[in-house]
Amino acid sequence: MAIAQKIKSYMEQASWIRKMFEQGAVLKQKYGSDNVFDFSLGNPNLEPPRQFFETLKNVVNTHTPGRHGYMSNAGYTETRAAIAEYLSEEHGVDLFAEHIIMTCGAGGALNVTLKTLLDPGDEVIVPAPYFVEYRFYVDNFGGVLLTVPTCADFNLDLAAIERAINERTKAVLINSPNNPTGKVYDRETIEGLGSILEKKSRERGRELYLISDEPYAKIVYDGIQLPSVFQAYRNSIIVTSYSKDLSIPGERLGFIAVHPQLTPLQDVLGGLVFCNRTLGFVNAPATMQRVVQQLQGITVDVNAYLRKRDMLCDILARIGYQFVKPQGAFYVFPKTPIADDVAFVQELLEERILCVPGSGFGCPGYFRIAYCVDDRVIQGAAEGFANVGRRYFAKR
Amino acid sequence: MAIAQKIKSYMEQASWIRKMFEQGAVLKQKYGSDNVFDFSLGNPNLEPPRQFFETLKNVVNTHTPGRHGYMSNAGYTETRAAIAEYLSEEHGVDLFAEHIIMTCGAGGALNVTLKTLLDPGDEVIVPAPYFVEYRFYVDNFGGVLLTVPTCADFNLDLAAIERAINERTKAVLINSPNNPTGKVYDRETIEGLGSILEKKSRERGRELYLISDEPYAKIVYDGIQLPSVFQAYRNSIIVTSYSKDLSIPGERLGFIAVHPQLTPLQDVLGGLVFCNRTLGFVNAPATMQRVVQQLQGITVDVNAYLRKRDMLCDILARIGYQFVKPQGAFYVFPKTPIADDVAFVQELLEERILCVPGSGFGCPGYFRIAYCVDDRVIQGAAEGFANVGRRYFAKR
Repeated sequence: MAIAQKIKSYMEQASWIRKMFEQGAVLKQKYGSDNVFDFSLGNPNLEPPRQFFETLKNVVNTHTPGRHGYMSNAGYTETRAAIAEYLSEEHGVDLFAEHIIMTCGAGGALNVTLKTLLDPGDEVIVPAPYFVEYRFYVDNFGGVLLTVPTCADFNLDLAAIERAINERTKAVLINSPNNPTGKVYDRETIEGLGSILEKKSRERGRELYLISDEPYAKIVYDGIQLPSVFQAYRNSIIVTSYSKDLSIPGERLGFIAVHPQLTPLQDVLGGLVFCNRTLGFVNAPATMQRVVQQLQGITVDVNAYLRKRDMLCDILARIGYQFVKPQGAFYVFPKTPIADDVAFVQELLEERILCVPGSGFGCPGYFRIAYCVDDRVIQGAAEGFANVGRRYFAKR
Repeated sequence: MAIAQKIKSYMEQASWIRKMFEQGAVLKQKYGSDNVFDFSLGNPNLEPPRQFFETLKNVVNTHTPGRHGYMSNAGYTETRAAIAEYLSEEHGVDLFAEHIIMTCGAGGALNVTLKTLLDPGDEVIVPAPYFVEYRFYVDNFGGVLLTVPTCADFNLDLAAIERAINERTKAVLINSPNNPTGKVYDRETIEGLGSILEKKSRERGRELYLISDEPYAKIVYDGIQLPSVFQAYRNSIIVTSYSKDLSIPGERLGFIAVHPQLTPLQDVLGGLVFCNRTLGFVNAPATMQRVVQQLQGITVDVNAYLRKRDMLCDILARIGYQFVKPQGAFYVFPKTPIADDVAFVQELLEERILCVPGSGFGCPGYFRIAYCVDDRVIQGAAEGFANVGRRYFAKR
């Protein structure tokens, strides 16, 4: 009654997650945080690249009047132009400053995009498993999240997506490289999705939008190239951030890039700027905009994550865990050897290992390991993973 | 159809504002921006204080691992503790880190607070004239903004507020020092408001909240003291930012402070942190949190704004404009000599003076002059204000 009923009910539903984190905190207090193996958060352990620190120091040590003041709600034109130039090259599509809106991270970018697009009751199709926040983001604007299962290898099930599209569908929201699976959708899949959306838009006489959440775009392994959604579909919007490329998630800097041939372009661009303002973001943080303006194409050392992936995957495979080897991001999403993933994660907790049950991503029977952690955390957890695994895999 | 209908309609309603700004831009292009007198924006012209630059450099030049990473959605405990300590002294109420949630500016703070509190249909009472964004902020969460006129001197009309409170009222939202009027509510008024809210909460058997938006708290003149809402009413929440104290509005840093005796405290605190996360803010920008942690009580030179106020008020008074002398913030809100404030602002535009009509603040018949500008802008506009004024005041 005192706070919004919906918020109260969400908080109650999430109470098992909180309980798990509280148990984790108790373990850390009891055993020391060095003896607890925390794989629960996607907080990159790598420090930002050298160029980030240098540029930040340069920006801060150079006095420019008005540097910390308001700018356009869309962000600095120079920053937007630098990003547009970089993306034009990357995607082979001519983008200009006007197609870029600077945001408070990808979380801000997604909320602004959804607020711009969604009328109450509009559906957003999301392949499951999916990043847990999507449900809240879509609900913020009266939208309905419709999940569609992925294939066994976590690739998009295009037929299922096509079947799910109906009169109320406004957008399909994808995330590649994927959190929690590490899956990267290949060119054929993305082009197939583009064709379906094109066909269905035509059939309905009303545009379907593809929202592509790409904060892990730079974290891909094994020579894989992330295919361009802009190449595959005209009505697409990319939302992303510098949180993972530059290891600066605490600074909340990201952007929205709108396909220059999207329909209706001016309404969407105007709506995004308006919603960035009226949702209370106002603008992306000023100093960090000036910093990333000079850091297009700079990323952390992806090989460090690759090494961690291989270290962890070797450990899990040797014990007998079943999983799809991640092609990007810094998550593995193995099957739980018992159906009850929450119970299984509790068993890991007894070994001082913190993971997140697949239920938290709309996909029970799995668990997520975030391996953006120090190597010693991965090595230290090997024994615990084995102790729990032995109960199930030894029986086979 | 393609973008949300509500967003489209808001953008159309706001088209006269955009048109005005476009005309302003045309003027700047034609006459050079030095010859256009732009009083339309509350973008502080003062540079941040020396201590801000020093602290920012210190923070950036000192390497601390993980400095740019995620922290708790509520912000750094050390930053929150520093603010709590400062506020405890200022308000005479014992606050701790847990009562402070760091936000992306006051705009973020307000949206997070309203999302936490409002069920659809809940009413928020706002004295008019009011900051134009409030209407969007309340609407974001299905709330209804109910305006109540202020007195002739822009003081709160307590009787009108009391009459407006009904079963659907969730909160009263005030802004002192006020944008657009520069009014500062005195202790008697704030205590009177507290008594009404206390009484009405009791009568209804359900809490009413007082949300106090205080980004201009440090910008007060003539020895005036801003009375503490925490002293006056238990169920109060302060939202504010460092945008004006430190002249850093582009950095988006603010906070929410919750009265430690608010009911139900834990639900509200938990809800605020949850909504900061799920609205996509995630956390306030990391580096700036570290900076303001060390700058409690530091502000820009308020005397610079005082001088501008006096300079502008002298000019306006000499011509014959009628206005209430501002006690804080950096706005004057004079009466327009004709009823049609939009038409009057167009007349000023012909003199290359940009102001905002009172209609934009729910108060036709007035116009807002934001005097956070260089002295030469104020001096340069004197002739134009006189030219337009002469048409009306000379006749008397």
